[in-house]
Amino acid sequence: MNDFTYAISTKILFGRNTIQQLAEEIEKYGRTVLFVYGQGSIKKLGIYEAVHSILEKSDIDCVELSGVQPNPRIESVRAGIQLCKDHAVDLVLAAGGGSTIDCAKTIAAGMYYDGDPWDLFLQGDNLIRDVLPIGTILTAAGTGSEMNGNAVITNLQTMQKFAIHHDLLRPKFSILDPTYTYTVPKEHTAAGVVDIISHILEQYFSPTKDSYLQDRLAESMLKTCINYGPIAVQNPTDYEARAQLMWTSSLALNGLLSYGKTTDWATHGIEHAISAAYDVTHGVGLAVLTPVWMAYVLDERTRGRFLEYAHNAWNLVGDSDAVAQQSILETRQFFSTLGMPTTLHELGVQQQRLQEMACIATTFGPIGRFKKLTTNDVLAILKNAY
Amino acid sequence: MNDFTYAISTKILFGRNTIQQLAEEIEKYGRTVLFVYGQGSIKKLGIYEAVHSILEKSDIDCVELSGVQPNPRIESVRAGIQLCKDHAVDLVLAAGGGSTIDCAKTIAAGMYYDGDPWDLFLQGDNLIRDVLPIGTILTAAGTGSEMNGNAVITNLQTMQKFAIHHDLLRPKFSILDPTYTYTVPKEHTAAGVVDIISHILEQYFSPTKDSYLQDRLAESMLKTCINYGPIAVQNPTDYEARAQLMWTSSLALNGLLSYGKTTDWATHGIEHAISAAYDVTHGVGLAVLTPVWMAYVLDERTRGRFLEYAHNAWNLVGDSDAVAQQSILETRQFFSTLGMPTTLHELGVQQQRLQEMACIATTFGPIGRFKKLTTNDVLAILKNAY
Repeated sequence: MNDFTYAISTKILFGRNTIQQLAEEIEKYGRTVLFVYGQGSIKKLGIYEAVHSILEKSDIDCVELSGVQPNPRIESVRAGIQLCKDHAVDLVLAAGGGSTIDCAKTIAAGMYYDGDPWDLFLQGDNLIRDVLPIGTILTAAGTGSEMNGNAVITNLQTMQKFAIHHDLLRPKFSILDPTYTYTVPKEHTAAGVVDIISHILEQYFSPTKDSYLQDRLAESMLKTCINYGPIAVQNPTDYEARAQLMWTSSLALNGLLSYGKTTDWATHGIEHAISAAYDVTHGVGLAVLTPVWMAYVLDERTRGRFLEYAHNAWNLVGDSDAVAQQSILETRQFFSTLGMPTTLHELGVQQQRLQEMACIATTFGPIGRFKKLTTNDVLAILKNAY
Repeated sequence: MNDFTYAISTKILFGRNTIQQLAEEIEKYGRTVLFVYGQGSIKKLGIYEAVHSILEKSDIDCVELSGVQPNPRIESVRAGIQLCKDHAVDLVLAAGGGSTIDCAKTIAAGMYYDGDPWDLFLQGDNLIRDVLPIGTILTAAGTGSEMNGNAVITNLQTMQKFAIHHDLLRPKFSILDPTYTYTVPKEHTAAGVVDIISHILEQYFSPTKDSYLQDRLAESMLKTCINYGPIAVQNPTDYEARAQLMWTSSLALNGLLSYGKTTDWATHGIEHAISAAYDVTHGVGLAVLTPVWMAYVLDERTRGRFLEYAHNAWNLVGDSDAVAQQSILETRQFFSTLGMPTTLHELGVQQQRLQEMACIATTFGPIGRFKKLTTNDVLAILKNAY
């Protein structure tokens, strides 16, 4: 086991109607809130009205930033920072999925950085010295942003989609009410499940040999996705399925699976290059790329890990090459069952832009720690996925 | 899944030499420390000298409370509180195993309670309103006290061993250096493994039906104990075994396995009645009682859970009664392999005191949530374990 520092400070309020605890949590940090949300689905869910009613009752002031898009843009971040400065905001409250939360986090970090917030993505996390407190109300399971210190932002001008990571970016509290995810459409529910699975796999496929506990924990979460993913897609108001996926989503990327080991993240790097250029849903891109990445990195050296995956996630038996291969087929088949596409072609990606995307994915050098991938490797994966 | 609030605020500094980060952590809370430790093993480990050297370099004042015993006594707590008051202590630093940490926690809570600290155990956790910050340096894996809000204290006068629970009792930071556990004797290493397994099982055997993720996580931790327990007992300086057990010990009782479900804790209740009267090592008492408790509560209603346990922890196949029974035998056999006794008789418990212990275990009424146990049930279990 590698050395690590564990610090997961986010308080989770899990269950029906935990939004009633909102004012109590906000008041620990101040009385002026920037309320960040997306395209209005929180109005249909009744969250918008509930938040305003709760804040009013407690005399908490509220400024709004609405219209945050999926694959959130750096422009929204800039607008949010200006609002925070103009209104002396004490806490940034995000209501939505990962995109809205990531936007809120970057606003919270940008507030204490004098330059343009895109610098944080280009020059590294050490520019982050302080961050406004962040609270979230989650409406979609997948990114895990509600319990971690990551944020992914897109710059359409430069065609880049980059991430920042800092423990200060962990929300102070997150409200997880599984009923808020009842109205997430089937295809987004499925994409969320793929996203969770991908997060688990990016940490599971690791060059660290001694990570027994972490690997078994990862398999536990994989099994939960495999068990409840199809249920949530087929029956969107199944509370238990929604609850299990929501909690798995948070635990899969809060550090629990990565503390003590090295992680991979190549597939995410490649997907970001695609969805920066095409505005593809993140989980959909991952569904196409993950099995292709697996097939590309499976070799004599990595076979043992694939066999563990085959046995413990898919209940396959035996130690042959065929079993390792079968685990990849099972993965692809599972994503198909959820209704995911299997090729980049189906996503509308143009073949002539694959080279360009391979270059963007490797902007900072080769990616992946389980198996290091150069620009040419990434191009080969993109071609295999086409 | 039941509703829950997740708040695990303890920072974990895991790995070799993480003690070097001690002063930095303490300074967040103040400059005067009560240093609590036990019978001197920390001097042999070099921790005592390291702590003093680190504190001196950073001009942090230090008062000492030494001699905390296994099954720590309320008298040590009273002495510690007096020292905190006399020296205006800012943080209580425990170096040792669960006993020392539990003592430190109760001192930290007692500092802000005007009456006698034993009241906290008799009248309930709502008497705890504030707590001094707590830091720990762990030297034995088992209790999980380094990452949770529990403390168990013994009152030899009244022959009671009771627990308090409060989120404020979670340490601010804990230093987990697996090499500190290299010198833990075989029998205590084994008792620690049993303690971890028992913590997992007390949460695994639950009346909550929908806890898929939590159950799979519990099985992950059980497998880690089954895999690495014998290695640590046979080869005390195996870093990976010590590291895996240390981290499992913390995660097994920090809330991760219990959030969202109801838990049992009958076996712990019974064991506390025994070790209050006989000063038996906690894990040794649990090794004797756990399989007997299992056999007592296995019936038509609970069989399904035992079958899951059989399949997922012990790789047994089939759904017959014999398989459920076999999982209990495997448990007993595993504890025996670790060198644990199998009867209360071997622990020196006197048969004529079983009734008295059954009454003490049920002081506050029936115990256990997986299966409710009356005084007569507990007596039957004690007799079966004799």
